[in-house]
Amino acid sequence: MDPSTIYQPIQKELAEVENRLKSVIKVEFNQLSELLGHSLKGGGKRIRPALVLLSGKFYDYDPPQLISMATAVELFHIATLVHDDAIDNSEVRHWRPTINKVWGQDKAVLLGDYLFARAGEFTSTTGNLHVIKLFSQTLRAISSGELNQAFSAFNLDQTHQDYLQRISSKTASLFIMATESGAVLSHAPEKSVKALKEYGYNLGIAFQIVDDILDFIATEEEMGKPIGSDLSHGTLTLPAMLLLKSYPEDNPVKRLFQNRDKQQNVKLAIELVRNSSIVQDCYSAASDYCAKACQNLKQLPDNPARQTLIELAKYIIKRKR
Amino acid sequence: MDPSTIYQPIQKELAEVENRLKSVIKVEFNQLSELLGHSLKGGGKRIRPALVLLSGKFYDYDPPQLISMATAVELFHIATLVHDDAIDNSEVRHWRPTINKVWGQDKAVLLGDYLFARAGEFTSTTGNLHVIKLFSQTLRAISSGELNQAFSAFNLDQTHQDYLQRISSKTASLFIMATESGAVLSHAPEKSVKALKEYGYNLGIAFQIVDDILDFIATEEEMGKPIGSDLSHGTLTLPAMLLLKSYPEDNPVKRLFQNRDKQQNVKLAIELVRNSSIVQDCYSAASDYCAKACQNLKQLPDNPARQTLIELAKYIIKRKR
Repeated sequence: MDPSTIYQPIQKELAEVENRLKSVIKVEFNQLSELLGHSLKGGGKRIRPALVLLSGKFYDYDPPQLISMATAVELFHIATLVHDDAIDNSEVRHWRPTINKVWGQDKAVLLGDYLFARAGEFTSTTGNLHVIKLFSQTLRAISSGELNQAFSAFNLDQTHQDYLQRISSKTASLFIMATESGAVLSHAPEKSVKALKEYGYNLGIAFQIVDDILDFIATEEEMGKPIGSDLSHGTLTLPAMLLLKSYPEDNPVKRLFQNRDKQQNVKLAIELVRNSSIVQDCYSAASDYCAKACQNLKQLPDNPARQTLIELAKYIIKRKR
Repeated sequence: MDPSTIYQPIQKELAEVENRLKSVIKVEFNQLSELLGHSLKGGGKRIRPALVLLSGKFYDYDPPQLISMATAVELFHIATLVHDDAIDNSEVRHWRPTINKVWGQDKAVLLGDYLFARAGEFTSTTGNLHVIKLFSQTLRAISSGELNQAFSAFNLDQTHQDYLQRISSKTASLFIMATESGAVLSHAPEKSVKALKEYGYNLGIAFQIVDDILDFIATEEEMGKPIGSDLSHGTLTLPAMLLLKSYPEDNPVKRLFQNRDKQQNVKLAIELVRNSSIVQDCYSAASDYCAKACQNLKQLPDNPARQTLIELAKYIIKRKR
C-alpha cells in the first residue's frame, strides 16, 4: 500500500513540494548536486509534508506558505536520516546505498548540515516567528533524543517511560512540527492548534512503535534496509522490552546486550518475537495511539482533510515499510 | 597575546554571553550536560561574539538583542568545530581531547546538531527576520564550503581563486554573519551594514590565511592541536599553493598529494615553507585583507568600538594561535 493514494486532497500541493525539492538539487557545485539528488530522490513516503498541508486545510488555507513549510519539514527529515545513517554506519536505505556508504561519513555529516540549512531557509521564507522557533526547538528535541538513545545503547535498565520519552523526542517531535506549523500558518484558533499538535504527537508515537515492530517482523526486501538493526545497535525498543519482561531470567536480548554472540542472538530474538504475542501487543499499543490521534481530530471542522488524516492514521498501522 | 585585553568596550556584555553559554550547559540530561560543558568551556577566543557586540555599537545599541545574537554566533561556531573534528577524526583542540575522541564520532555529530539548534533558538529570540535568514544562509555557505574542501582533498589542480572562494564560504561567512547581524540589530543605515559586512569578509579571509600559515609555522604547544594537519588531510592552503608554484617540478606537497611518504613529506613541506619567503608572502596577503577591513571602517562613526575593531584586525595578524 502506497500512502500517495490517500493524499488526494493535497495532490497538487505535494507535486509543488516535489518541484521545490528538485530546485534544491540544482546547484552549480556538481558533486554537491549529485549528493542532493541521491538523498532527495530517495523515494520517501512524504508523510511529514502531507501532514503540514493537511493540517493547513481547516482554516485560512495558504498554499504558498504551506508548500514552503512542507518542503522545509521534508528536508529536515532527510537531514536527520543522512546523519542517522552516518552515525550508525548504515549501508542501505530505501533499497539504495546510503550517502556515507557511497561518499564517506564526512560528506554525509556535511550534507546533513547543508540540508538543515536549506530546511531553515524554507522555514524562514514563511516569515512566521512561531514556526521559525518551532524549527530550532524540534532540532533540539531530535538531537537530544538521539543522544539519549546513543548513551542508552546496550543498557538493559530502561523503563517503558524512558522509551516513550525517547521516541517522543526523536520521532514524534517532527510530526508535531508538521501538524503545528500547518495549523499556525493557516491561522487556526488556539484550541485547534493544540488538537493538531496532539494528533501529531500520537501519530508520531504510533509511527515509531510500528517502525520498531517492522525491524523485527518485516523482511529486508520490504523495508529496503536490513532488519534487526535496532538490536544490533543496542537500541532497546518496545518489542525487545516486552521480550525481556516475558523471559526475565535469560533471553537473547539480555545475552546480546551483554555482548555475547551478537549476530546469533539478534536472529534468536527476532524468531522469539515473531512467534509470540509480542507483535500483537505492540500493534495494539500503536493502535491505541492512532485511536487517540483520531480522537484529537474530532474537534476540528469535518472536511476531506480530516478524513485523510484519519486514513493516514490507519495507514501508519498497516504499512509494511 | 590574549584578545580579551582589547575587548574593553564590550567587557560587560561578553561576560553576559559567557553566562548565556553556561545556561546552555545546564540541562537535566547529565551526559548531554557533560558534553556541552566540555565543548563550551573550551577556552575559545570569543572573536565572533565580540564582532557582533562591537558591530552593534555604532547606532541604536541594544544589548539584550546583541547578547542573544552574540551567543548564537559562538554556539554556531562551536557546532562547526565539533562537526569538523568528528569529520577529520581530530583528537585534540584547545589542548584538550575532542568530543569525538572522548565520546565517539556519533555523539559528536549529534552534539553538533544540538548546538546548531541552540544557536538557532538564540537567533530566533531576536525576532528579527533578517538575522534569522542570515543564520540559515551562513550554515548553507559553511557546509557547502566544507564539502567543497572535502571533495578537493589531495587535488593539486586548484587555483588561488578556488582557495579564496573556499575560505570565504567556510570561514569568512560566519564573520560576516557576526558583523552584519550586529549592524542590522542596531538599525544601522544600509551603507553602514554594507561596510561592516565587508569588514567581516576581509577580516575573515585574513583570519583564515593566518590560520593556514600557523598550521605550518606554529608549534603544537602554541596551537593546542597538531600542526601540519591541513596537508595531512590533503587541504591545499595558500602556503602549500605558493610552495607548488616555487618548485613546479618536484616538491613534498606534490609528492604527498600523490600519496607518497605522507608523514615524511608533511615534515619536509613544513621545513621548506619555514625556510622560505612564503611565510612572509602569506602574511603580506593577510595584512592586505586586514588593511582593507580597516579601510571599510572609515565610513563608520568614530568611537571606541571602531578603534577596537581596528585593533582586532591587528591582533588577527599577530596572534600565535
